[in-house]
Amino acid sequence: MVNHYSSKLVEKAVDELSKLPGIGKRTAMRLALHLLKQEISFSEQLGSSIINMRNNIRFCERCSNISDMEVCEICSNPRRDEKLLCIVEDVRDVMAIENTGQFQGLYHVLGGLISPMDGVSPSDLTIDKLTKRINKEEIEEIILALSATVEGDTTSFYIYKQLSGIKLKISTIARGVAIGDEIEFADEITLGRSIIARLPYATGF
Amino acid sequence: MVNHYSSKLVEKAVDELSKLPGIGKRTAMRLALHLLKQEISFSEQLGSSIINMRNNIRFCERCSNISDMEVCEICSNPRRDEKLLCIVEDVRDVMAIENTGQFQGLYHVLGGLISPMDGVSPSDLTIDKLTKRINKEEIEEIILALSATVEGDTTSFYIYKQLSGIKLKISTIARGVAIGDEIEFADEITLGRSIIARLPYATGF
Repeated sequence: MVNHYSSKLVEKAVDELSKLPGIGKRTAMRLALHLLKQEISFSEQLGSSIINMRNNIRFCERCSNISDMEVCEICSNPRRDEKLLCIVEDVRDVMAIENTGQFQGLYHVLGGLISPMDGVSPSDLTIDKLTKRINKEEIEEIILALSATVEGDTTSFYIYKQLSGIKLKISTIARGVAIGDEIEFADEITLGRSIIARLPYATGF
Repeated sequence: MVNHYSSKLVEKAVDELSKLPGIGKRTAMRLALHLLKQEISFSEQLGSSIINMRNNIRFCERCSNISDMEVCEICSNPRRDEKLLCIVEDVRDVMAIENTGQFQGLYHVLGGLISPMDGVSPSDLTIDKLTKRINKEEIEEIILALSATVEGDTTSFYIYKQLSGIKLKISTIARGVAIGDEIEFADEITLGRSIIARLPYATGF
């Protein structure tokens, strides 16, 4: 499709918007026209919040979580359990686990998963930082909370191997049939693992 | 869902992004994290192109199309037929019609359709400007190219009524079974209209 933009300004904004993941030219045009219909302050707030975020964002020196300060809010909270570390892929996982209200320890954000197909090797992640951290801090247990995918399993196994020899409890989050799901619709691998990892009745709640 | 953002900067950007139509908090968070993974220049280009577009956009004095100048490229093109005017809802329709390469006249962009349900009355559109334009310029024919919806039909009829008494050919784009569509799957209203508006064979190509 040849596009006839009647404005270079709009063309430029549409080009930039359509570089975002999941946003094509058509959606970008719809967004641009929406912006044109709003007050100028709307676009100014949007544009400056994006630039401001990217220019001033920091990553926590301790856990690599995104942060506005040198050390993130979670790491600097004295009420969190410093002996327990949850290993996650990225910031969204931190948010998801925080939302459960079930975890009081600290995090370690890897920044991705090992994936030779996508050119992500262990050195691209914060695994070195993790081993240093375990040697320095008094951590008693780490929980591997990575996706149940080939990349997640590979990364879990790599970390497990890296930490062998260190006195440390290593656990992984439970896999099983999701709460509210019907047994007959659960996929066979999940169902199989949920049978192998079965729990004494009344402890699994 | 309570969200635990570890950064006010990210929270602000997510808030602003999720004000866009069709973008929820989850998608906004995905976009924000994508921006954080890219170079700083990526966010700067995106942010500044949005602000720049909104601050500097103009609407063509003649046809109300978006434009970087006082009069848009189409209106200022001496090779376009000034006697023929195509009435459209918005800029996207101008682009769609330009892409066909079948129209050599000028446009008039209404900026919306009459819709009492959405609080859009004729005075919110450029209909007054259209009648003034028809009285001033030497226009021989207008083509109503509005959506085949209640709002589109209402707007077409309103314009038709407003222009009664003025010597002017008023036409509307043909409605019918789309090229490539199978007759059996065409909706009955379209199929009915395509039978009523039938053409002598060999002229309809």
